[in-house]
Amino acid sequence: MSDKKYVNVFEFEDEAKKNLTNNAYTYYRSGANAEHTLRDNIDAYSRIKLNPYVCAGLKDIDLTTTVLGQKLSIPIGIAPSAMHRMATPRGELTTVTAAKKVGTIYTLSSLATTNMEDVAKEQPDALRWFQLYIAKDRKITEVMVREAERLGYRAIAVTVDAPYLGIREGDERNKFTLPPHLKLEILESFKKEFAVKGKEGSGLFEMFKDQIDPAMSWEDIKWLKSFTKLPVILKGIQNGEDALRAAQLGVHIWVTNHGGRQLDTVRSTIDMLPEVMHAIKDYRNTVEVYVDGGIRRGTDVLKCLALGAKCVFIGRPLLFSLAAEGEQGVLKMFELFEKEMKVAMMLLGAGKISDLGLKHLVKATIPVSNL
Amino acid sequence: MSDKKYVNVFEFEDEAKKNLTNNAYTYYRSGANAEHTLRDNIDAYSRIKLNPYVCAGLKDIDLTTTVLGQKLSIPIGIAPSAMHRMATPRGELTTVTAAKKVGTIYTLSSLATTNMEDVAKEQPDALRWFQLYIAKDRKITEVMVREAERLGYRAIAVTVDAPYLGIREGDERNKFTLPPHLKLEILESFKKEFAVKGKEGSGLFEMFKDQIDPAMSWEDIKWLKSFTKLPVILKGIQNGEDALRAAQLGVHIWVTNHGGRQLDTVRSTIDMLPEVMHAIKDYRNTVEVYVDGGIRRGTDVLKCLALGAKCVFIGRPLLFSLAAEGEQGVLKMFELFEKEMKVAMMLLGAGKISDLGLKHLVKATIPVSNL
Amino acid sequence: MSDKKYVNVFEFEDEAKKNLTNNAYTYYRSGANAEHTLRDNIDAYSRIKLNPYVCAGLKDIDLTTTVLGQKLSIPIGIAPSAMHRMATPRGELTTVTAAKKVGTIYTLSSLATTNMEDVAKEQPDALRWFQLYIAKDRKITEVMVREAERLGYRAIAVTVDAPYLGIREGDERNKFTLPPHLKLEILESFKKEFAVKGKEGSGLFEMFKDQIDPAMSWEDIKWLKSFTKLPVILKGIQNGEDALRAAQLGVHIWVTNHGGRQLDTVRSTIDMLPEVMHAIKDYRNTVEVYVDGGIRRGTDVLKCLALGAKCVFIGRPLLFSLAAEGEQGVLKMFELFEKEMKVAMMLLGAGKISDLGLKHLVKATIPVSNL
Amino acid sequence: MSDKKYVNVFEFEDEAKKNLTNNAYTYYRSGANAEHTLRDNIDAYSRIKLNPYVCAGLKDIDLTTTVLGQKLSIPIGIAPSAMHRMATPRGELTTVTAAKKVGTIYTLSSLATTNMEDVAKEQPDALRWFQLYIAKDRKITEVMVREAERLGYRAIAVTVDAPYLGIREGDERNKFTLPPHLKLEILESFKKEFAVKGKEGSGLFEMFKDQIDPAMSWEDIKWLKSFTKLPVILKGIQNGEDALRAAQLGVHIWVTNHGGRQLDTVRSTIDMLPEVMHAIKDYRNTVEVYVDGGIRRGTDVLKCLALGAKCVFIGRPLLFSLAAEGEQGVLKMFELFEKEMKVAMMLLGAGKISDLGLKHLVKATIPVSNL
Ligand SMILES: Cc1cc2nc3c(=O)[nH]c(=O)nc-3n(C[C@H](O)[C@H](O)[C@H](O)COP(=O)(O)O)c2cc1C
Ligand SMILES: Cc1cc2nc3c(=O)[nH]c(=O)nc-3n(C[C@H](O)[C@H](O)[C@H](O)COP(=O)(O)O)c2cc1C
Ligand SMILES: Cc1cc2nc3c(=O)[nH]c(=O)nc-3n(C[C@H](O)[C@H](O)[C@H](O)COP(=O)(O)O)c2cc1C
Ligand SMILES: Cc1cc2nc3c(=O)[nH]c(=O)nc-3n(C[C@H](O)[C@H](O)[C@H](O)COP(=O)(O)O)c2cc1C
Repeated sequence: MSDKKYVNVFEFEDEAKKNLTNNAYTYYRSGANAEHTLRDNIDAYSRIKLNPYVCAGLKDIDLTTTVLGQKLSIPIGIAPSAMHRMATPRGELTTVTAAKKVGTIYTLSSLATTNMEDVAKEQPDALRWFQLYIAKDRKITEVMVREAERLGYRAIAVTVDAPYLGIREGDERNKFTLPPHLKLEILESFKKEFAVKGKEGSGLFEMFKDQIDPAMSWEDIKWLKSFTKLPVILKGIQNGEDALRAAQLGVHIWVTNHGGRQLDTVRSTIDMLPEVMHAIKDYRNTVEVYVDGGIRRGTDVLKCLALGAKCVFIGRPLLFSLAAEGEQGVLKMFELFEKEMKVAMMLLGAGKISDLGLKHLVKATIPVSNL
Repeated sequence: MSDKKYVNVFEFEDEAKKNLTNNAYTYYRSGANAEHTLRDNIDAYSRIKLNPYVCAGLKDIDLTTTVLGQKLSIPIGIAPSAMHRMATPRGELTTVTAAKKVGTIYTLSSLATTNMEDVAKEQPDALRWFQLYIAKDRKITEVMVREAERLGYRAIAVTVDAPYLGIREGDERNKFTLPPHLKLEILESFKKEFAVKGKEGSGLFEMFKDQIDPAMSWEDIKWLKSFTKLPVILKGIQNGEDALRAAQLGVHIWVTNHGGRQLDTVRSTIDMLPEVMHAIKDYRNTVEVYVDGGIRRGTDVLKCLALGAKCVFIGRPLLFSLAAEGEQGVLKMFELFEKEMKVAMMLLGAGKISDLGLKHLVKATIPVSNL
Repeated sequence: MSDKKYVNVFEFEDEAKKNLTNNAYTYYRSGANAEHTLRDNIDAYSRIKLNPYVCAGLKDIDLTTTVLGQKLSIPIGIAPSAMHRMATPRGELTTVTAAKKVGTIYTLSSLATTNMEDVAKEQPDALRWFQLYIAKDRKITEVMVREAERLGYRAIAVTVDAPYLGIREGDERNKFTLPPHLKLEILESFKKEFAVKGKEGSGLFEMFKDQIDPAMSWEDIKWLKSFTKLPVILKGIQNGEDALRAAQLGVHIWVTNHGGRQLDTVRSTIDMLPEVMHAIKDYRNTVEVYVDGGIRRGTDVLKCLALGAKCVFIGRPLLFSLAAEGEQGVLKMFELFEKEMKVAMMLLGAGKISDLGLKHLVKATIPVSNL
Repeated sequence: MSDKKYVNVFEFEDEAKKNLTNNAYTYYRSGANAEHTLRDNIDAYSRIKLNPYVCAGLKDIDLTTTVLGQKLSIPIGIAPSAMHRMATPRGELTTVTAAKKVGTIYTLSSLATTNMEDVAKEQPDALRWFQLYIAKDRKITEVMVREAERLGYRAIAVTVDAPYLGIREGDERNKFTLPPHLKLEILESFKKEFAVKGKEGSGLFEMFKDQIDPAMSWEDIKWLKSFTKLPVILKGIQNGEDALRAAQLGVHIWVTNHGGRQLDTVRSTIDMLPEVMHAIKDYRNTVEVYVDGGIRRGTDVLKCLALGAKCVFIGRPLLFSLAAEGEQGVLKMFELFEKEMKVAMMLLGAGKISDLGLKHLVKATIPVSNL
């Protein structure tokens, strides 16, 4: 176990880079096309200003919260991301163990390099969610969901922002493919055509086009709701209109642009959030809203929660801390978020998650030109 | 034939540079004066955010469209640009062949290094348009238009943003001139004073001042309409007032700032487009609007179409792909646009060109300061 | 005594760097986390434009002003900052002497490396204020305040923006600690647990968490007011709501974000000031407002005063000029501010401090787009 | 005579730098303090967009205009600038000769290194104006004005933005002083205390403080008007309020911030102009408005004129072209402006100066977010 100290979440990336092949590092890091949205996901947070209240009389800070009825130690879940065995030998098994230790949600990706059962067995009591891509062959999808239920996954996050895979130029250049000793264990366990082999351009792009159904529609969401008892979450909602539609179907909402990896020049997620919250305001008792994308600072988390998100999720920080130091890296990364959040909430004058609200964001700075 | 793979349209420029003289490369690349507009033509696209809808149930994407009654395989035409023989030995013959294979419009420039007839013969069935500069000697202009009609060109695009040629500083420095073995075949076939010889500053600038009529006016447009049956397009419209005037005369509108090569510090073309669309709203059944300038991404095309353009045109991407790999380069460049557009439309939730509309652009991001 | 000439306040930093250990320099320079607010504190001033009036008929400029009934030679006080003996051998004794010579306020930090009595004895007649952190053990706080009264300090500035210490990444990396030959003389004279020893991360961060009371509240302010006759100032007010609350309790207001060292991504202080002034408008006869943060230019001072601040304070310019050349450095630094202010007021058309007002700031530049 | 070709006005600076001492180059180049306004004077022009009209039917372009009843060949005058003999051996004699050849205004600075009479004799028929600083000793000022009248200067431009000289840090560092073989011939011919000798910091700053009257006021303007028949212009007006006051006294208005050399963080001049034009709208028949600052492009000139300025003035372009190649350099520089203006007006659709108006500026680009 390394005794390297990290002073912020960004620093795991440098360490990770040392341990990853260029093929893997590029796959983890990249965004779609010119990566405008990838950058904006991060930059947008510095445009939003916090509004601190003093003399708040807070003894300490409580970061716990409740998501879909389950208690989390910190309002930061692990977003689904593919292929953890490229980052660390035991891959998803390491991740689920870290999530259990932290006390937060682990969302297992359909594109994992470990199968659903092994992950479940590794940490039966972990707060596991399952992320679903809807296959052209709906039978496969149905069986997968039933399997998730059987293995104690607590929610189904259907990814709706990826009818096609986005074009990531680095992966095109590298003709990205899974290292030969690894497999998409979950998908291939259902059908072996799901393999990722790079020939022309990105192999993942090709597999997607062949096997995942771009024609997935709102009807499929109803169908899913019809046969599973698990809460359903739509991961990929990006505007108020779709958010309302989701809420009306009784599914939860995960605001994301897939970490800037799908459609370039869409808004940063934090810029989408106010519109989404506004659209579903009549459903706030029954529908939860989550958000991910570019969250690297304790203050980023607070801004999302102040706008109304129930919790946030992280993608690359998980991957890079995992690649840097395995389970230990993930724990260190969460400790950093915890410390930053606690200090920031103390300075903001908010003692617990439910205290956070719009008042903690600067709504109107009076410019001199308006005096 | 090279097997070099390009992952985006920008990459052709580097390859082209290797094959071009500095004289030619500078001529192709440059914009007017400080090149503010040249840069802004490109930058403006990243300021406009796409608004994707999920669960759209699309099986695949249809990029075909209809322009002036003709079917295109993709809503991207080839803008007129001068002197293709500096880029590739057979010059415009190569371009027209590529256009035919792609299934899109090729606009032949008045300043071509191949004459109208040879281009026509090379691809009699290609969707050829002819770009016209109005000469001081109107007789020449009239004969040229008749010749275009005779040779099966399908429309006349009159360039109205170039009463004088803009000042491109690189060409001034290089004293730009055509290589001695080339000629402005079209113009010189009508009158040999159209030759481009650099003495003081840019030779093209001087030829223009001598031979092209700066005093061209709306009367000339009426005159043109009076004797040709071909559709007339005004290439160079840059605001709503002129657009309305054009629409009232029954001519089509090509919004362009000539690729930032004429008047520096005018708006980017995508910033002109809403005003133009608004101005001609009563004529949208009869008048088509096209736009060019800085289009390098599939998403750029979608933004133009969502605002109401019928199709877009590209200048430098054609020249650089032509210089990089001749016909092959042009085909590869169009394939890239096609792939980017298809992925983007799938992610946007629009299955065909006519589905695109304002709803696919972010109209109002609620800033935190407005909550 | 060095005869080095400085042409602006920024230049002291380079000189200081030569004389400081990396440990000390980093501590002085740093801001919290990504240092957005640190940078914005400075940048914000260049966004505010001055509006000069000509032909003002001013013979000369009078910079004197009155703060809490005391006359200052210049409306720039010295903000409290910790540990001056890291900058210069006699530390706070040098600072208080310089302040006396300049004729302005010196605010002694609780975290000084010289005790309250020695500072008082060094310059009994200096305009000394005392900055207070509220200790977990309130007895200590009470004794400290009584001591300040006894020793002729003229006001108590309670720092309210630091229930926890902000995270300064440089200090975390350096495991910041006081050099062994130095002590927090004031705090340790009351209780020796206040020592700063770096183990894991910043030693100051740890001392703070152990000894300073994060639960400090508005009740404590009332309690303080109840037993001291000295004017009380809340240092750390950052919005209008808290400002009003302070004004209602009859305490003065020091708008600051602690030099960008506490909560990152809060507004620059000059962006907070209009909201604060507006909120306390009914109390402007009794409550004074001060501001600090990023003030490096004579024009920065004028902008604060034009918005309604009674005077400004400086942190790092004091530390860097002190480290550069001790007392002499501080005097040179104030001379620079004096010269810049006098020239700027002459050019602005304002002859004395009380002439400054909103009219000297550009309220509305008519953009061409509004003509 | 050099046959070096310049393709834009900026290029003279590089050439000038080769011929100038560092002392002189820095003096010419610098702006006040952090040079925010210096930079913004130039940058502001690229924020204003031109709005071109096509098919304007213009044969050629007429750049002539009338200022104070005198015909200019081009609407660009020469602003007063000090000490031309640092740039070229015959100094102001060369400048006035160039101005005569160009057919435009030459404003002789009070700080010239050639006396008023020699300049007048060199070019008796040139359109000469005289720039005045009001000396502490008003007698000197009065005599100077009478001398200007006697020698055929056609207007008095009183500089009102320099009660003190601005702080230019480069000059402070260089302890700027006139080279020993040169003198402020005009001022010293009236009183020898006007000499510029650098001791501590800038020598010009010190001379100013000693000899020029900061207490100059609107009364002095009335006094000036009372005894001279020459038109009076206030050079340094920076807002609408002062502009109105000037107009009411019947003097003309020169909007300038002294090339960013006086008060830093004032607006760029082009950002001041709309407010000034609006304020004096009832006086537009009798009062002329000029503007200078950062004008380097033909399009910059057009933007000023479109907003209502009668003509513009240039400072550094004159100095740098003069230092680059003497008279020849100045003529080349004006030729560049002439070419850029002619091309730009042709492309804009404006055939003569009086055609220019607000319609040639983009007033409202409809952002997508407003559709
Ligand atoms: C390397 C990588 C792989 C990903 N794989 C998936 C996936 O399999 N399924 C999915 O729904 N999202 C996937 N995502 C998106 C993440 O769930 C999440 O939305 C995104 O990473 C959040 O942005 P961040 O990386 O800036 O935190 C992936 C993201 C990355 C970076
Ligand atoms: C090298 C070059 C030559 C051009 N020649 C012509 C021309 O002869 N006639 C014309 O109307 N437009 C001409 N154009 C303008 C193009 O038709 C088109 O408006 C512009 O290139 C679009 O911008 P883009 O290059 O950013 O795609 C030329 C553009 C370039 C770059
Ligand atoms: C090194 C350093 C130490 C500081 N120590 C204290 C302190 O002990 N108490 C306090 O109230 N503020 C402290 N401050 C904050 C200053 O009082 C002041 O608010 C801030 O420095 C102003 O910003 P400026 O440095 O940009 O001028 C400190 C600031 C610095 C830079
Ligand atoms: C080196 C230099 C000397 C100047 N001397 C004078 C002067 O003696 N009197 C005056 O009124 N303005 C003076 N000015 C200001 C100019 O008249 C003019 O306002 C300014 O240079 C315009 O900005 P520009 O240099 O960006 O064109 C001077 C400017 C420069 C650059």
